[in-house]
Amino acid sequence: MAGSSKRYPPGRPLMLTRNARIAGTGSSLPEEVVTNQDLIDELSLTATARAVEYSIGIRERRRGRLEIPCADYLARAAEACLERSGAAPQDVDRVIYARLFGDHAVPATAMQLHARVGLRAGVPVMDISAACSGFLHAMDIGLGYINAGDERVLILGGDRGALAGFMPVAKDTRTAFLNGDGFAAALLEASAEPNFKSRYFYTDSELSDFAYVPFGTELLNGAQNFGPGMLALTMPDGRRIHQSVLDSCRIISERLLALAGLTIDQVDFFVTSDQTHLVWKDQLKLLGLPESKSVSCFPKYGNTVAAMAPLNLNEAVVTGALRRGMTVMMMGHGAGASGGGFIFTY
Amino acid sequence: MAGSSKRYPPGRPLMLTRNARIAGTGSSLPEEVVTNQDLIDELSLTATARAVEYSIGIRERRRGRLEIPCADYLARAAEACLERSGAAPQDVDRVIYARLFGDHAVPATAMQLHARVGLRAGVPVMDISAACSGFLHAMDIGLGYINAGDERVLILGGDRGALAGFMPVAKDTRTAFLNGDGFAAALLEASAEPNFKSRYFYTDSELSDFAYVPFGTELLNGAQNFGPGMLALTMPDGRRIHQSVLDSCRIISERLLALAGLTIDQVDFFVTSDQTHLVWKDQLKLLGLPESKSVSCFPKYGNTVAAMAPLNLNEAVVTGALRRGMTVMMMGHGAGASGGGFIFTY
Repeated sequence: MAGSSKRYPPGRPLMLTRNARIAGTGSSLPEEVVTNQDLIDELSLTATARAVEYSIGIRERRRGRLEIPCADYLARAAEACLERSGAAPQDVDRVIYARLFGDHAVPATAMQLHARVGLRAGVPVMDISAACSGFLHAMDIGLGYINAGDERVLILGGDRGALAGFMPVAKDTRTAFLNGDGFAAALLEASAEPNFKSRYFYTDSELSDFAYVPFGTELLNGAQNFGPGMLALTMPDGRRIHQSVLDSCRIISERLLALAGLTIDQVDFFVTSDQTHLVWKDQLKLLGLPESKSVSCFPKYGNTVAAMAPLNLNEAVVTGALRRGMTVMMMGHGAGASGGGFIFTY
Repeated sequence: MAGSSKRYPPGRPLMLTRNARIAGTGSSLPEEVVTNQDLIDELSLTATARAVEYSIGIRERRRGRLEIPCADYLARAAEACLERSGAAPQDVDRVIYARLFGDHAVPATAMQLHARVGLRAGVPVMDISAACSGFLHAMDIGLGYINAGDERVLILGGDRGALAGFMPVAKDTRTAFLNGDGFAAALLEASAEPNFKSRYFYTDSELSDFAYVPFGTELLNGAQNFGPGMLALTMPDGRRIHQSVLDSCRIISERLLALAGLTIDQVDFFVTSDQTHLVWKDQLKLLGLPESKSVSCFPKYGNTVAAMAPLNLNEAVVTGALRRGMTVMMMGHGAGASGGGFIFTY
């Protein structure tokens, strides 16, 4: 049964000897603003900008320039994050980048960051691939590294491919307006305080056909598949994704609260992935939280895949909505098929 | 200066509250055996099978079938590993797959494993991307998860794309014979014994142009790039890679031994990535170890990218060369640009 808690593993206590805190956040958005009308014109779509905004809540999104490597955008997000964290590039012990495609398959895209950011020579970096929940997975890995001895782990997410990659064949008005390019960062830092109270992650493989991007060796099955379309998102049923994200939100929040020994009214701020503006609103309704306790960048940035949740986190920090000492529930949903999150003190 | 220890970060003690052990290993090799002569014939190359074997030490390799998903091969490696570990699929708390390309970009390839292997519903899985050292990175992440509460983490590596993906345009006799497809697994299990004694990882971004596979958003810069060649490996200077792998081996071994408080003669067995048979021999010479203390599958499987090190680990276990209680130094080298490893008691 979809949404049944039997499909999700039980929560486990987060056993950290060395806890962490989020020292700061940052973002980097491509300069080009693409409005709904721009997409309608470019793709010769039958739609009106107003109807698009009304139906999924998006006004505009950013588009990365293909001649600018993903690594350049990531470096800007990293720099903003380090500056806000009061940390120097030399203070970073490790970089984990949650990618969608990355600039190339080999080497890891994060390998381009040492010189761009001024990291210490030899600092280990890696790319991980987990779509919309990737940043949360990367944070989770980062917690593990701090627990095992690191002082500071830089977490990055986003890609210039979410719009620039998906768009060339996005003639389907159900998906053409959803995505945008954006990049975000957070610095995890060792802390003597037990800031991270709980974590919970799951993967629901029964939903693995909900959102599909063919860009992998499956392409070798037929040379006719080669072309820009191989980076395009197929999403057969938006309503099922909507519901599965809500199921995901319910399960994650129940587990996180139980593990932390908290109730929802003790959560001061809620950060989530907003695949659409409506699914953000519906998550708040589900949790019984007012919109003032969360933020959604979807109207201005769209679905930026792994960057959604951290862009919202950064927005909350920058606008002052999220302040030190607040109890935060942060989560990410990969089409409801893979997700997870944390409760932590910011 | 290439190989200078200044280019590598200092080692840090591995701070584990919950240690782990390798409960078992497994492998999965595609059935099709491709000899040097087969490749010479298929690609109309000017070479002799004997000269190829003499120069890089390879006799044959396996080739994955494109109509069989990568996930099927991974599932077989997982099953073999679980059986040898005496663990049930339901005992696995998490899966981390070190991929090269994966079947597709979204969802994660590891998401196809729940039903195939019989994992517990909802168990979290993820793909990571770190080329030849990917399996070691995945083990490192797995240690972090066991440290923070997991009981068993299944680590997977390999791809059907190493040969099947690289080959179509591999007319260059310097690279055409190197690669093969293979898959390997290891099960990490929580242990009361301090088995993992040290770990060390680095990324040397100055070497990031040593080995290059364009399969990423850089392809969008020019539609002429679309085609099987986008999965092909470019390796401008094999000799520099050879030297950088040896530098990597030297630095990692020095750091691992110092952190563990051991000397090389206390290492009973050595597992490494063997990009060629010669670079395996040269690592042993560098460390002063006899060939009887290591194993290289390169002659029969070739360079299987992320699967090299764990295929060698599995071979050592299966042949009885590696026995319980032995002190193992295990490492992986991503063209010398990213690498790392561990010293542990098997």
